[in-house]
Amino acid sequence: MGNIDYECPHRVSVPPSKPFFKSLKSGLKETLFPDDPFRQFKNRPASRKFLLGLQYFVPILEWAPRYTFEFFKADLIAGITIASLAVPQGISYANLANLPPIIGLYSSFVPPLIYAMMGSSKDLAVGTVAVASLLISSMLGKEVNPNENPKLYVQLALTATFFAGVFQATLGFLRLGFIVDFLSHATIVGFMGGAATVVCLQQLKGILGLVRFTHATDLVSVMRSVFSQTHQWRWESGMLGCCFLFFLLLTRYFSKRKPAFFWINAMAPLTSVILGSVLVYLTHAEKHGVQVIGHLKKGLNPPSLSELAFGSPYLMTAIKTGVITGVIALAEGIAVGRSFAMFKNYHIDGNKEMIAFGMMNIAGSCTSCYLTTGPFSRTAVNFNAGCKTAVSNIVMATAVMLTLLFLTPLFHYTPLVVLSSIITAAMLGLIDYEAAIHLWKLDKFDFIVCMSAYVGVVFGSVEIGLVIAVAISLLRVLLFVARPRTFVLGNIPNSVVYRSIDQYPIANSVPGVLILQIDAPIYFANASYLRERISRWIFEEEDRLKVSGETSLHYVILDMSNVGSIDTSGISLLEEVKKIVDRRGLKLVLVNPRSEVIKKLENAKFIENIGQEWIYLTVGDAVAACNFMLHTSKSNLGVEYNSQDDNV
Amino acid sequence: MGNIDYECPHRVSVPPSKPFFKSLKSGLKETLFPDDPFRQFKNRPASRKFLLGLQYFVPILEWAPRYTFEFFKADLIAGITIASLAVPQGISYANLANLPPIIGLYSSFVPPLIYAMMGSSKDLAVGTVAVASLLISSMLGKEVNPNENPKLYVQLALTATFFAGVFQATLGFLRLGFIVDFLSHATIVGFMGGAATVVCLQQLKGILGLVRFTHATDLVSVMRSVFSQTHQWRWESGMLGCCFLFFLLLTRYFSKRKPAFFWINAMAPLTSVILGSVLVYLTHAEKHGVQVIGHLKKGLNPPSLSELAFGSPYLMTAIKTGVITGVIALAEGIAVGRSFAMFKNYHIDGNKEMIAFGMMNIAGSCTSCYLTTGPFSRTAVNFNAGCKTAVSNIVMATAVMLTLLFLTPLFHYTPLVVLSSIITAAMLGLIDYEAAIHLWKLDKFDFIVCMSAYVGVVFGSVEIGLVIAVAISLLRVLLFVARPRTFVLGNIPNSVVYRSIDQYPIANSVPGVLILQIDAPIYFANASYLRERISRWIFEEEDRLKVSGETSLHYVILDMSNVGSIDTSGISLLEEVKKIVDRRGLKLVLVNPRSEVIKKLENAKFIENIGQEWIYLTVGDAVAACNFMLHTSKSNLGVEYNSQDDNV
Repeated sequence: MGNIDYECPHRVSVPPSKPFFKSLKSGLKETLFPDDPFRQFKNRPASRKFLLGLQYFVPILEWAPRYTFEFFKADLIAGITIASLAVPQGISYANLANLPPIIGLYSSFVPPLIYAMMGSSKDLAVGTVAVASLLISSMLGKEVNPNENPKLYVQLALTATFFAGVFQATLGFLRLGFIVDFLSHATIVGFMGGAATVVCLQQLKGILGLVRFTHATDLVSVMRSVFSQTHQWRWESGMLGCCFLFFLLLTRYFSKRKPAFFWINAMAPLTSVILGSVLVYLTHAEKHGVQVIGHLKKGLNPPSLSELAFGSPYLMTAIKTGVITGVIALAEGIAVGRSFAMFKNYHIDGNKEMIAFGMMNIAGSCTSCYLTTGPFSRTAVNFNAGCKTAVSNIVMATAVMLTLLFLTPLFHYTPLVVLSSIITAAMLGLIDYEAAIHLWKLDKFDFIVCMSAYVGVVFGSVEIGLVIAVAISLLRVLLFVARPRTFVLGNIPNSVVYRSIDQYPIANSVPGVLILQIDAPIYFANASYLRERISRWIFEEEDRLKVSGETSLHYVILDMSNVGSIDTSGISLLEEVKKIVDRRGLKLVLVNPRSEVIKKLENAKFIENIGQEWIYLTVGDAVAACNFMLHTSKSNLGVEYNSQDDNV
Repeated sequence: MGNIDYECPHRVSVPPSKPFFKSLKSGLKETLFPDDPFRQFKNRPASRKFLLGLQYFVPILEWAPRYTFEFFKADLIAGITIASLAVPQGISYANLANLPPIIGLYSSFVPPLIYAMMGSSKDLAVGTVAVASLLISSMLGKEVNPNENPKLYVQLALTATFFAGVFQATLGFLRLGFIVDFLSHATIVGFMGGAATVVCLQQLKGILGLVRFTHATDLVSVMRSVFSQTHQWRWESGMLGCCFLFFLLLTRYFSKRKPAFFWINAMAPLTSVILGSVLVYLTHAEKHGVQVIGHLKKGLNPPSLSELAFGSPYLMTAIKTGVITGVIALAEGIAVGRSFAMFKNYHIDGNKEMIAFGMMNIAGSCTSCYLTTGPFSRTAVNFNAGCKTAVSNIVMATAVMLTLLFLTPLFHYTPLVVLSSIITAAMLGLIDYEAAIHLWKLDKFDFIVCMSAYVGVVFGSVEIGLVIAVAISLLRVLLFVARPRTFVLGNIPNSVVYRSIDQYPIANSVPGVLILQIDAPIYFANASYLRERISRWIFEEEDRLKVSGETSLHYVILDMSNVGSIDTSGISLLEEVKKIVDRRGLKLVLVNPRSEVIKKLENAKFIENIGQEWIYLTVGDAVAACNFMLHTSKSNLGVEYNSQDDNV
């Protein structure tokens, strides 16, 4: 007996083995260049290659020749709109980062120009962001007090920006953009919500007109700090703040309901600043406890290369701050760029964007700018204002330049409380509770990730929240591999298709045959688990059959279709499963081992061990073979059907 | 038109949704209890449940009633054999851990008794191990000098043992045994080899009779220390060491060739100790630079609960040492127990073993024992000596007890150099270069993990090597998920089976249809990658068809069979792929989404979006439907074939 008479229709093939370096090369290409950026360079003359390469890194060279006056009209309007947002936001966020307000204006001048040349998004508006500003103040503030040692603090912020740029550009050049992917959507929703909450809490200082305030960012410290000095609250400041906050939220509500009036929302911050400044100037409120910005230096960005504190004892802090803020800024910028590219149906290359962001921050750090990226709010306004290309960034930079050259004295009387209101209004929009509800509905695990990021940021610190969320996200990936699911397959009636009995209750199990599907690569991390689990499936099936008195078990079929990869621990596992199965007098059958798996099994001599004839291409073939042999053996009573040394 | 006329044979079913807590419960059970240890408790009376529970935790209650005199004879011989190994090894490894030699003897008395009651292995012989001893000396030695402050050092070692035991038992109770699985076979091969190399290097101190020696363990420091004091080398000591080493290696070589003479190898260490002691006693070599053990206190283990230094400022060091050595000891003990259980065809429950190891170390730390586990060498001797049950451990413990009570003065003249030779001989057997070659042949990545563990241990430190190896192993798991492979499928001739064209070059592609298979769960970590990669497949296929002038592309079929899980980022990815495909005037078809995936897609309304009629159970069905519609549309020229709102 044996399968000598059984004609198997199709065989599993072992793919031809590739030379080591060839397979290494193709593996690296698949890992690092999924989009194959060199495709267009193939079979071109050298001069054309050079031009294409230049256009690859400096996209403006590609689209500038096709730029039209129509485009410019649209970009001009969009640019002026975002400039009106950029000036108050720049000052506010610099304030949040404990940096001089003028640095916030500087940061809206040089970086947008660099991005306009190197960036590939048509909609992204460059600027500083609240979360990165908060991170800079909390990470650097731990080491250097910005009030006691403002010069060193600014130097460290610029140095951190430099390293953020270097890190971003390096990630792009080395095609390591996938590091950003480890910040999942759920992490970002929770993290942004948490950071926005924390930023709002920090604004209580400005709105209540407090002079002393905690340096910690967590809810408990801030609340303790606020309520321990109730007698210091300034009602003038508080009232002004609430009024402006109400005004800003009202304009946003209105704009949201009628998108055509987006500009009302876009102009609201600048209007608030003008109104607030005029009000303070007329009432001399600055003498009644309403703090104002004060003197702003006229003139463009001074060079700051010599300010970079490479020799400072705090260099490590600056590097750490740079790397963390750099990654977060990247994640926000790329996510924003991609979202708007999806709307307009064009494609953004993540790695190229990283190089653009990196260059923009390196250049920024040498011209007195701190960390910039593509903020969601400003980009959304840019998009709504009808921008066509990155020229809107150039327009914005020009407007900011004019402000720096001529208009800075006008901001002398701008009250800080208005800036706090602007930040608070912007941040309230970032707490995306609807997204959290959506996550809960779709995927409980993502909801847990999101909530832990939120809780970690609000009750711990920004870094703690981030680390917890990334750790939980990674744990999920590891858990998927460490605890792979195994399914029992059954036959879908009137077909040769086998599917999980859990999902298809109509599927019928095959008498005498247990079909198991393993749902992950077999690695060291799951080999012991799979041994336990497979043993239990076999025991339970045997118990069940004994109780119900059906045909006893003769074959165990392992469907390897979903086993994409295997390591040496995995091979040992299969050898152990073979022993377990043999010991119980059963026969192990493999189905559809994939190319990597079958190559390794052949090298490990497992194919010889199990027998080439016990490996089938489909579950259907394997079941047919098992049934054939089961009936042959039944008709030859007394002949052992699972002897190992059949003649084939 | 559309698929109104097309009869699809089988439909993908959405499994009935389970209540949240029920699915949580079944998920936790699959994750933590793969072997379902409560199975035997089902439907039993309470008294029986209690007895079974007791037997579960104290297996001796289960097998003791079946114990026979035949078993005892075998266990007695095995027990005496391993005792002859335990005494010199105990003294040697205590020496390696910089602990008083008597603690090594104590450690072979109490822990084996505990293990005999609670352990589930029949072959494991309990004792101290070289790697854990080395780790204790290197980790504690950094904080406390064992020569200057021996009492505190011993207290910390006991405290570390206590925490190792608590940690091990906790892992077992919480069913977290899978943490040990993250030490892959490759990691252990490299790590053990590296640790053995380091231990051998440390023995140069004893063999060369050096008094001063570096506290570092890396190759460079040790070599510098050895060669900086060549004038201190003692030839008497060196010669004695080399002779004994030669003797020990010779006996091992002989035993390996004739396994029946295993006892020659087993007795060799004790013989060496006796020979060496007699030699020193007769020649008074201790006065000529050969260091001896000196006075050993008579008597059994003194209680040491009061020695546990919970209030010490070094408590954190002790906890850290305990956790790391505990994990490594567990990994070795469980791997050894499992290997021998495989030989004898019985099963070991990892979590239960962890509880036994943990209890044994907690009890040990209260009775002046330091960290014990199941060393490979001693267990192999036990197995070869024909042990039947854990009673051989009781015999060994009794023999050690007699030694402690009456024979300790005999070890006064034992030269340290003999102990060094014993350790060196044992360690040389642990450098498993054949396993490393095997790894290279089977799996290059495992080889890299193994080598980095080895190099890390030898040139860095034991902890560095371990951390590097675990990090690289985890990176592989993450990389598998972060960079999933995608395959183009083709039709195997004369079948309805579709397989990867890479693996089956005979497979034919279907005109007008691109069939892609995704080989991993779709998570945040790979969503961007998959978008790039799938886009590229589509572009490349369209380019190829344009060049070759074949039927242009009309359908993109995504085979989701291998997508075991999806998160919200993954759902967004599918939505984006749908947009990309739509934009190019193509139609997206899904095949065989699995239960978890289809549930989430339905919740996210993606099924509505794509259309229920564009989801098929098999690739064959999908291709048949596409072909049907392709021909229908061709015969109805002018009718757009990929309109989305077909009537179904």
